[in-house]
Amino acid sequence: MNEIDQYLSEKRDLINRALEDCLPKNRPSAVREAMNYSLKAGGKRLRPILTLAVAETLEHEDSSVMDVACAMELVHTYSLIHDDLPAMDNSDLRRGKPTCHRVYGDGIAVLAGDALLTLAFEMLAGYGEKVSSPDKALKITAELSRAAGVNGMIGGQNLDLESEGKRISETELEEMSSMKTGALLKASVISGAIAAGATEDEEKILTEYALCIGTAFQIVDDLLDHESSANEIGKPTGADRERFKPNYPGILGIQEARRRAETLHEQALASLKRLGKSTELLTGLAGKMVYRKK
Amino acid sequence: MNEIDQYLSEKRDLINRALEDCLPKNRPSAVREAMNYSLKAGGKRLRPILTLAVAETLEHEDSSVMDVACAMELVHTYSLIHDDLPAMDNSDLRRGKPTCHRVYGDGIAVLAGDALLTLAFEMLAGYGEKVSSPDKALKITAELSRAAGVNGMIGGQNLDLESEGKRISETELEEMSSMKTGALLKASVISGAIAAGATEDEEKILTEYALCIGTAFQIVDDLLDHESSANEIGKPTGADRERFKPNYPGILGIQEARRRAETLHEQALASLKRLGKSTELLTGLAGKMVYRKK
Repeated sequence: MNEIDQYLSEKRDLINRALEDCLPKNRPSAVREAMNYSLKAGGKRLRPILTLAVAETLEHEDSSVMDVACAMELVHTYSLIHDDLPAMDNSDLRRGKPTCHRVYGDGIAVLAGDALLTLAFEMLAGYGEKVSSPDKALKITAELSRAAGVNGMIGGQNLDLESEGKRISETELEEMSSMKTGALLKASVISGAIAAGATEDEEKILTEYALCIGTAFQIVDDLLDHESSANEIGKPTGADRERFKPNYPGILGIQEARRRAETLHEQALASLKRLGKSTELLTGLAGKMVYRKK
Repeated sequence: MNEIDQYLSEKRDLINRALEDCLPKNRPSAVREAMNYSLKAGGKRLRPILTLAVAETLEHEDSSVMDVACAMELVHTYSLIHDDLPAMDNSDLRRGKPTCHRVYGDGIAVLAGDALLTLAFEMLAGYGEKVSSPDKALKITAELSRAAGVNGMIGGQNLDLESEGKRISETELEEMSSMKTGALLKASVISGAIAAGATEDEEKILTEYALCIGTAFQIVDDLLDHESSANEIGKPTGADRERFKPNYPGILGIQEARRRAETLHEQALASLKRLGKSTELLTGLAGKMVYRKK
């Protein structure tokens, strides 16, 4: 295993343990089970890893940043549960397992998503108290709520629902994917920066990095959906094509989409050079996000 | 119009204007329309009025407390949209109008609820910045997220779904209603107190007040559901009975339920006496919550 794979695997374990700890410890209930089920259904933990990696890159050593990282994954998981609902993408499988609503029913799945979103903000409030930095926690709350809201993930999912079966332009696709996927990736990066007490310049550089890898990540996602078999990536593939959902290879062609992802990857690395820190981690992560097989 | 009715009517107007202002100003979208529709569908604005009234009682004069009050109503409205979904209570009417999902479809209704919940936390982050009190904003975020979460509203709705058609005890009903309804009423009161910089003693007294009027409010809700006609309260009535949902008159009998609400009302007023402030507002509000016709 090379260094970055080792790092990813270690962080994933730590994050999984932290996520388990942050679930409410009240008596068992269907909603809590459903939250737990979806949180444990696997996933790359990319967003919390980005938060941790940015904080480390900025030489921030307070382990409480894990609470911030978990908040990002909670919001990600909530969005997957709601997006999978019959009233939205109507997906039966996610990460190779039955989706939350297939196991617990639509009502409990809606509530489990709501609860994960709510818990994310509770975590941030708790973080602010723990590290006695209400200002940092509040800045992160502002970032995360904007990223998750109507001008971010929710707006992106709305565009997604409305674009089904329609021809949209490249600009529209970019807007949709930057809201749907890019916004939370950026919030994950910037939240790590805020927690670490980054300077304005550092935040600016890391924002550039986040925007580049965010779009590249979405392009690669679309490419994998085009190319892979259901077996390999654990969710029904070709789904975007079947339901005429706009996607990068569909609009740009496979070659151009791949080239675009590579250019964005290079731009991300160029931004990092201006950070004046050792950036192996963030470089390695960018590589993993663009040159991946699932 | 008597003094308290005048107060309620004035505050309602101010709150309605503030809610309109806090909706995202991006380009029109189905989700934004749906958020707007549900926010404007009327309602007593009881929760934000409680926040404002508590702040006024504690002689707090900063008008930014309106942002906090709006956050309470945003969370309330989100919960109504999600509770009305076919996968939950399956209600076609709310406040005499078609429910959000009946107008915009289930998918957009889920997103509109998500967006209102998210916006509430964005408002609180903005409030903290505006008044340069990150600590107050964070304390309110903690209150609101706990009230809305798995040990509050979401947990209550979960119990509600699970109790349908079952016989439950009075204690179980009390627990369910304190989570489902009481938690947000309490958060609305306490958030006003935090914004006003209340002492620990004041918070304690106001918590007692909130718990009493919260339960009384739910009992009266159940009684109205028993007694009124659909025409009068603007939603299908007798719904709880038809679907065998546990409720106070069902478990205690109508007489005892009414008596219980009155006792709680008296307890709320007794708590207020210990506040050492002029409490006409909070007294008047408690009266309105218990002795109402809709």
